[in-house]
Amino acid sequence: MEAAPPGSSRPAEPGPCLSGQRGADHAASASLQSAAGTEPGRHPLAVAAVLPAGGCGERMGVPTPKQFCPILERPLISYTLQALERVCWIKDIVVAVTGENMEVMKSIIQKYQHKRISLVEAGVTRHRSIFNGLKALAEDQINSKLSKPEVVIIHDAVRPFVKEDVLLKVVTAAKEHGCSDYDLEFGTECLQLALKYCCTKVKLVEGSPDLWKVTYKRDLYAAESIIKERISQEICVVMDTKEDNKHIGHLLEEVLKSELNHVKVTSEALCHAGRHLQQIILDQCYNFVCVNVMTSDFQETQKLLSMLEESNLCILYPVVVVSVHFLDFKLVPPSQKMENLMKIREFAKEVKERNILLYGLLISYPQDDQKLQESLRQGAIIIASLIKERNSGLIGQLLIA
Amino acid sequence: MEAAPPGSSRPAEPGPCLSGQRGADHAASASLQSAAGTEPGRHPLAVAAVLPAGGCGERMGVPTPKQFCPILERPLISYTLQALERVCWIKDIVVAVTGENMEVMKSIIQKYQHKRISLVEAGVTRHRSIFNGLKALAEDQINSKLSKPEVVIIHDAVRPFVKEDVLLKVVTAAKEHGCSDYDLEFGTECLQLALKYCCTKVKLVEGSPDLWKVTYKRDLYAAESIIKERISQEICVVMDTKEDNKHIGHLLEEVLKSELNHVKVTSEALCHAGRHLQQIILDQCYNFVCVNVMTSDFQETQKLLSMLEESNLCILYPVVVVSVHFLDFKLVPPSQKMENLMKIREFAKEVKERNILLYGLLISYPQDDQKLQESLRQGAIIIASLIKERNSGLIGQLLIA
Repeated sequence: MEAAPPGSSRPAEPGPCLSGQRGADHAASASLQSAAGTEPGRHPLAVAAVLPAGGCGERMGVPTPKQFCPILERPLISYTLQALERVCWIKDIVVAVTGENMEVMKSIIQKYQHKRISLVEAGVTRHRSIFNGLKALAEDQINSKLSKPEVVIIHDAVRPFVKEDVLLKVVTAAKEHGCSDYDLEFGTECLQLALKYCCTKVKLVEGSPDLWKVTYKRDLYAAESIIKERISQEICVVMDTKEDNKHIGHLLEEVLKSELNHVKVTSEALCHAGRHLQQIILDQCYNFVCVNVMTSDFQETQKLLSMLEESNLCILYPVVVVSVHFLDFKLVPPSQKMENLMKIREFAKEVKERNILLYGLLISYPQDDQKLQESLRQGAIIIASLIKERNSGLIGQLLIA
Repeated sequence: MEAAPPGSSRPAEPGPCLSGQRGADHAASASLQSAAGTEPGRHPLAVAAVLPAGGCGERMGVPTPKQFCPILERPLISYTLQALERVCWIKDIVVAVTGENMEVMKSIIQKYQHKRISLVEAGVTRHRSIFNGLKALAEDQINSKLSKPEVVIIHDAVRPFVKEDVLLKVVTAAKEHGCSDYDLEFGTECLQLALKYCCTKVKLVEGSPDLWKVTYKRDLYAAESIIKERISQEICVVMDTKEDNKHIGHLLEEVLKSELNHVKVTSEALCHAGRHLQQIILDQCYNFVCVNVMTSDFQETQKLLSMLEESNLCILYPVVVVSVHFLDFKLVPPSQKMENLMKIREFAKEVKERNILLYGLLISYPQDDQKLQESLRQGAIIIASLIKERNSGLIGQLLIA
């Protein structure tokens, strides 16, 4: 029941570049891999994960089981799968879902290109679901693509923010301690189940606040805000020319930097075949401000949109593109340019299908320097709002600063 | 240190009208009052509340102590005070804050017109803060405005969603059980403190999920979403004429009703001295769609804005006003009307000072019925987005449907 296409280049996580500590994160990741036994020359520890996801979410107060509730239009369980599959030393992820949700789950795996996932049917209780997952891993079935693991992580489908270090703690403890009396006394019943029916090592490990479980509707709200915040930490200002330092795009970049304290603002040119820009897309920047100065049209924005559509960036998160245009409102009334710019509504509808949220922004460009600063500042506030909210109801609007 | 102006008519809570069960809620409220002993002819039970609010919020990961963190620009503690002061049988609310936050707290009480609040200085621990609050209530000071209560509710400043029924359970239990051995064994240390130092009855009472505490940053996000949802449950469509049933405003009202399933959509005319509208404002509707048909200007919207500014509605929550205008884009290009409508930016800046978020919406009005339905639907989606997000960065924008 392996459902993910092999060799996909989809980015797995907003990840390191958003934490602002790329170097440090890479180092941490290397040492984690080593501890999990995946460094060359060592026998790798076979680790798998089981996700019981057969619940009906009655405490949530919504008809959809909570693991399938959408956050930015993507089901919660997909975020949890994303958190697990980015941990390269987890070889197999077994998800237990009810028969009626089997097709939904398959389509989620396909749409979001999840990898290393197998599905089993959930039992009538959480414990039976875990048992079914463990059984699938333990059995030496001839046609099974699953390899028998030494350690199995049992993880709730509704804890989307689990981090690699906690998972590693679990695996290390399981390897070192086996299943102690302490765990059986104070651990959950899951531990007893695992001990009784499977020859698999289990231990209760201290979690972190990130490990919290989505239980109530308020937790869905919190999860959505956290995810929105995570993907709003970097903005790339895309310009139609690189050379000119006094380019209005650079001025906008400076204002964005000073208005948005905690956001990394970079700039790139669309020319030179856009190689740098390709890298920024690969590094998972989810916010683009495209400055159109050379033409009064959407040529630059369209080029950027094509690049984004060709990439896999938009599979997991909606990407915001703000198409920025400048106009001296005293010389040309905005209404004159507006007619032309309103074409953005059609573009926006089109690219929404590809998970791109496109907005237009017309910034006043007065001769007076102080007034220009003020309109740039106003533009930055609007850009910040659009990126923060990712409001799909306002796509295709032409906003004015 | 009584800081609230007497006799204020500020609404205390989005409250009953938002729950969709106005009648039922009133009945519940009456029986609660009776149980708390405030019905006529009975000796009223003297109840007070103490809020320890001296914490520094280190788990939140933000520099501001969590009780002062803003939600829709208003500090969290103000929401908690609002929840307590709407319970009429709580006679005094004593808040313990650190010396350095005393002035901040006073300004919060003044700005949001909180009533029945007294301030005491917080101690170095939560327990000392509670002790200081209890002492202020217990002492028979000559100049004290506080009356000695029979029951004191000790409530965290960071649990903004406490409901009257839970508070009543607390009071009833305190009255009936006094302080049992069970409480001392399994209750928090607060219970022991209260028993040891004060002649005040205390008991541990089961809470509800609403009682949750804002601890982490994610809880602030959740609180903001819950509050936004609460004040987005009713939209009033304001029209410049009442008589015409085929009024485009009524068509918009119908589309809003079908697009926004869980929202109560009403309509009112601005004429007849706006008496019905006054009632809707008093009933705490926080969302207005003002349809301007008779004039091509903002006359109707301006009338509505004046009414809102004169009311106290905007003290606690930002009120959304969408000024809607119609235009046959085939006969008149939108740019022509836009020049005039862009005045909305100035209005929006002005009324933002009074906590009103004003947006413009120009809806295409084609002759074709099906196309009209489509543009009304588009307008409804935009209105829903504006109301849901309450994005102050986009005020004064003229959106197009």
